[in-house]
Amino acid sequence: MVLKMSTLFVRTLREDPADAEVTSHRLLVRAGYVRRVAPGIFTLLPMGLRVLRNVERVIRDEMDAIGGQELTFPALLPREPYEATGRWTEYGANLFRLKDRRGGDYLLGPTHEEMFTLAVKDFYSSYKDLPLTLYQIQTKYRDEARPRAGILRGREFLMKDSYSFDVDDDGLREAYQRHRSAYVKIFDRLGLDYVVCSAMSGAMGGSASEEFLAVCDIGEDTFVRCTNGDYAANVEAVTTPQIAALPLEGLPAARVVDTPDTPTIETLVDLFNQREDLRRDDRAWGAGDTLKNVMLMLTLPDGKREPLAVGVPGDREVDLRRLEAQVAPAEVAPMSEAEFQQHPALVKGYIGPGVLGEKGSSGIRYLVDPRVVDGTSWITGADQPGKHVMNLVAGRDFTPDGTVEAVRIQDGDLCPVDGGTLELARGIEIGHIFQLGRKYAKALGLTVLDQNGKAVTVTMGSYGIGVSRAIAVIAEQTADERGLCWPRELSPADVHVVAAGKTEEIKAGAAQLADALAATGLEVLLDDRKDVSPGVKFNDSELLGVPTIVVVGKRLADGMVEIRDRKTGEKEEIPVEGAAERIAAVIRAA
Amino acid sequence: MVLKMSTLFVRTLREDPADAEVTSHRLLVRAGYVRRVAPGIFTLLPMGLRVLRNVERVIRDEMDAIGGQELTFPALLPREPYEATGRWTEYGANLFRLKDRRGGDYLLGPTHEEMFTLAVKDFYSSYKDLPLTLYQIQTKYRDEARPRAGILRGREFLMKDSYSFDVDDDGLREAYQRHRSAYVKIFDRLGLDYVVCSAMSGAMGGSASEEFLAVCDIGEDTFVRCTNGDYAANVEAVTTPQIAALPLEGLPAARVVDTPDTPTIETLVDLFNQREDLRRDDRAWGAGDTLKNVMLMLTLPDGKREPLAVGVPGDREVDLRRLEAQVAPAEVAPMSEAEFQQHPALVKGYIGPGVLGEKGSSGIRYLVDPRVVDGTSWITGADQPGKHVMNLVAGRDFTPDGTVEAVRIQDGDLCPVDGGTLELARGIEIGHIFQLGRKYAKALGLTVLDQNGKAVTVTMGSYGIGVSRAIAVIAEQTADERGLCWPRELSPADVHVVAAGKTEEIKAGAAQLADALAATGLEVLLDDRKDVSPGVKFNDSELLGVPTIVVVGKRLADGMVEIRDRKTGEKEEIPVEGAAERIAAVIRAA
Repeated sequence: MVLKMSTLFVRTLREDPADAEVTSHRLLVRAGYVRRVAPGIFTLLPMGLRVLRNVERVIRDEMDAIGGQELTFPALLPREPYEATGRWTEYGANLFRLKDRRGGDYLLGPTHEEMFTLAVKDFYSSYKDLPLTLYQIQTKYRDEARPRAGILRGREFLMKDSYSFDVDDDGLREAYQRHRSAYVKIFDRLGLDYVVCSAMSGAMGGSASEEFLAVCDIGEDTFVRCTNGDYAANVEAVTTPQIAALPLEGLPAARVVDTPDTPTIETLVDLFNQREDLRRDDRAWGAGDTLKNVMLMLTLPDGKREPLAVGVPGDREVDLRRLEAQVAPAEVAPMSEAEFQQHPALVKGYIGPGVLGEKGSSGIRYLVDPRVVDGTSWITGADQPGKHVMNLVAGRDFTPDGTVEAVRIQDGDLCPVDGGTLELARGIEIGHIFQLGRKYAKALGLTVLDQNGKAVTVTMGSYGIGVSRAIAVIAEQTADERGLCWPRELSPADVHVVAAGKTEEIKAGAAQLADALAATGLEVLLDDRKDVSPGVKFNDSELLGVPTIVVVGKRLADGMVEIRDRKTGEKEEIPVEGAAERIAAVIRAA
Repeated sequence: MVLKMSTLFVRTLREDPADAEVTSHRLLVRAGYVRRVAPGIFTLLPMGLRVLRNVERVIRDEMDAIGGQELTFPALLPREPYEATGRWTEYGANLFRLKDRRGGDYLLGPTHEEMFTLAVKDFYSSYKDLPLTLYQIQTKYRDEARPRAGILRGREFLMKDSYSFDVDDDGLREAYQRHRSAYVKIFDRLGLDYVVCSAMSGAMGGSASEEFLAVCDIGEDTFVRCTNGDYAANVEAVTTPQIAALPLEGLPAARVVDTPDTPTIETLVDLFNQREDLRRDDRAWGAGDTLKNVMLMLTLPDGKREPLAVGVPGDREVDLRRLEAQVAPAEVAPMSEAEFQQHPALVKGYIGPGVLGEKGSSGIRYLVDPRVVDGTSWITGADQPGKHVMNLVAGRDFTPDGTVEAVRIQDGDLCPVDGGTLELARGIEIGHIFQLGRKYAKALGLTVLDQNGKAVTVTMGSYGIGVSRAIAVIAEQTADERGLCWPRELSPADVHVVAAGKTEEIKAGAAQLADALAATGLEVLLDDRKDVSPGVKFNDSELLGVPTIVVVGKRLADGMVEIRDRKTGEKEEIPVEGAAERIAAVIRAA
């Protein structure tokens, strides 16, 4: 098939659109792939739709290969099922809600767990019907607070969402692994640079989850990966390598020290290093030798609030988002001055483990960083104004109520898998796989009879790919300063033939070559525009990003045409005689 | 590819769903093709989605063949463009409206004229860019007052909408004809029984329009067709064959007659037939000899109301919907008693042309049926209580302000093309083609520079096909008492293999034949369900409606399998040896 640029509904722009912050948005608009209709709402123009179809094809291939069955749910959905699972409310302002002419409440589906669960409930009743995997590629809606970056984070967007249904946990784990493998294949075929991150499952509930993050500086998600390449995780999901407890025997006794004028950890540590009687011989005291106790308030789903103390080494900060992921669905905020006043045992600036925890006089729950293992000694607050305590030993002098992963992750932290070094990076979520478990099945009453005729609640997995987002991410990762640069499998055409000259010979030669290429089964984009200079056509071919460009120009008179590789920029002259077959062979071999 | 019913997400129901009024709805639900989520909102299950993909393929083929370029607009649209064309208001309660988190007004697109117009305005600026045809196959929303009949009239539904853009009227006419031919090919390939009806363009504006109506007793649209097959039209669009004026010379003078106790046209005519001095020699007076003047009120778009008198032969009724189509966008209602009182010249029951029209004493606009040509004589009201006038001649004794097509069409009316006989029938709109003209381009400022460098407003056509509706209509037209009966091009599978028996030989034989059929490139549905009797499987195969059914049963022991034609019920035994190739050949030849 030959797409002629003289009639194709595409226009390239020289200028960047004013509202485009990121490369993919800028280029997809400039190259005429997408157009903005409203914030976060885009039209896919013919070139964009061609890329989308290619992405969809790859996804369908791999979903079908793991036995997924495709169907399509509506986007306009009634309130009731989302009320039953609590998400009508939980989604808050992110949900588009509307009323129909009779006043009935509807929503535009942000994700379809409820509908899939109900469909299976409608059809299936026996363990013999399972396992089952259903999927759809369908338009979803989220009223993002900050729709940005073009189709990277839209308010109307295309998702592949699939759901697995199993009678037991082993089945769910297998379904999850099948999806994981399929996702790896899909993202590999799409040519993405990505990592699979352990993730917290957050608001979705459930027990295990991984995110597929495209590695990208403009990403909104921070993740860590081991420089050895054996581990990647969401910041929220990183775990600290386990540290063995130290022996308690022979440790010096705790000692309360007057520490006037030490408003910061730095000044406190200085004081300990300067005073002869407090100094250590082997090395200077550091912030990491102090134990900082941070006072917070949790808000539980029922609205109740309760205090929480978190103890972390003084050289680390508490990452509230990370902490929140651990205590979900509770929300976390710093303790206010007024709340502080309600606990007379707390001496501001001098809070120590002595008053914290189940046995402490405040009774406030006390969780510590995993580095605070039994046998470690700390300089920390002595619960008296102007005084700290040193040599306070965990497991001897105090016993926390538990540990919590709450410190802000830093470059150089240790990998939980091999003890290697972690580094922080930014990514964009392109896929997410969850072991949902029985949350939705329970809420909506999806049970089947097991082998003994007993009703058991079905266990589910939920698996998503951002389809329109994937296009933007691929554009983002592959583009260069000259324009888009599509991986072959996704390109809107296989080859871009440029008629570089105004003579009839060149026009006819380009058209003939395009036809000959199409005859080999390739999809050909032919730049046959009149009144457009070769220079503009070359620039456009680089902007549009088809991987192979063929220039039919002056050298046609000598029987030669030029092949350019969009990515590498390599050029080669080949005889026009037999060119179509030769180009087709090269493309098919790639 | 082999679809196995043992794992396919489909369930057949023996009972009709309680809310299903029509055959297609009943069967599509019973056969597991669709499921209702809310009134007028449906899920397409795997079997339904397969049919949809086939319908889409046919449509894309033919749209691409006329140079249509596919793109996809969003469904969630901002208010502004629809405000500019007046449709934000005009659509009334049929439009789903909603607000985003910032309070911005949005709608769910019922049709996309505005968006296409703006896209072309964004890209194009010269007559050289035209002609252009764009299309999408996309989800649309209308908040129907009475969503009914399953996917036949949904509130969320799939449409193919396309739009042509031309610089002049000739171009528009050509684009319109290209679409018309493409639609004929599409509906022919879909196996539909349909007529192309002349239509009023109604709220869409524009100058010419035709509807593609599937002939169907459950249809909501009434249309007429000539028994000679050369004409079909919407009731609103039917035209009366032109009647030549008659000579005025020699006609008897008008004569006022006392007509007491004639409350109805029948009693009036009786009186004329019974009184010696009024009787005609050649034939009795009939209701068709009287002229009935019906008093109505028009409501104009600006809210103003004005009276209208419509004169029709006494044997005909005024069809308000038909009249409304002629005076659109004005709305029509009978004149109320209070409004009547405001016109003292009107004598109730005795209104005649004398007081009507521009020159009449009431000044009320007076339009007559096209049968009231100059030289026709009428018995009509004399504008005095208890009196009628006879021999009142149009063009001599009164002059209407014009004619109007307003009488209710009846079986037996004359065809405007060949004077043949019209008959009324019912249909379902499956396609609609409009010459929109410049309405949207004007409202949204879509101009291009013509050859002389002058800005001219682009003229547009708008062309729609109800894609999900087409599935229901095809089901409706092709189903029989046993179930669905798909045309080959749309069937969810090419062949349905039934394993009719529990022995391992039969199961293996059926599976092998299914694989062999799939190897020839056919899509195979294999009923490999355990614990399901052959009788239930046969019933399900007829319910599901795949055109060719192959039964692998007891006769497999003798090396034979049976082929059944779903439509005709014909059965044939053939040797299992070579059966796949033979069946494939038959199917490909069909």
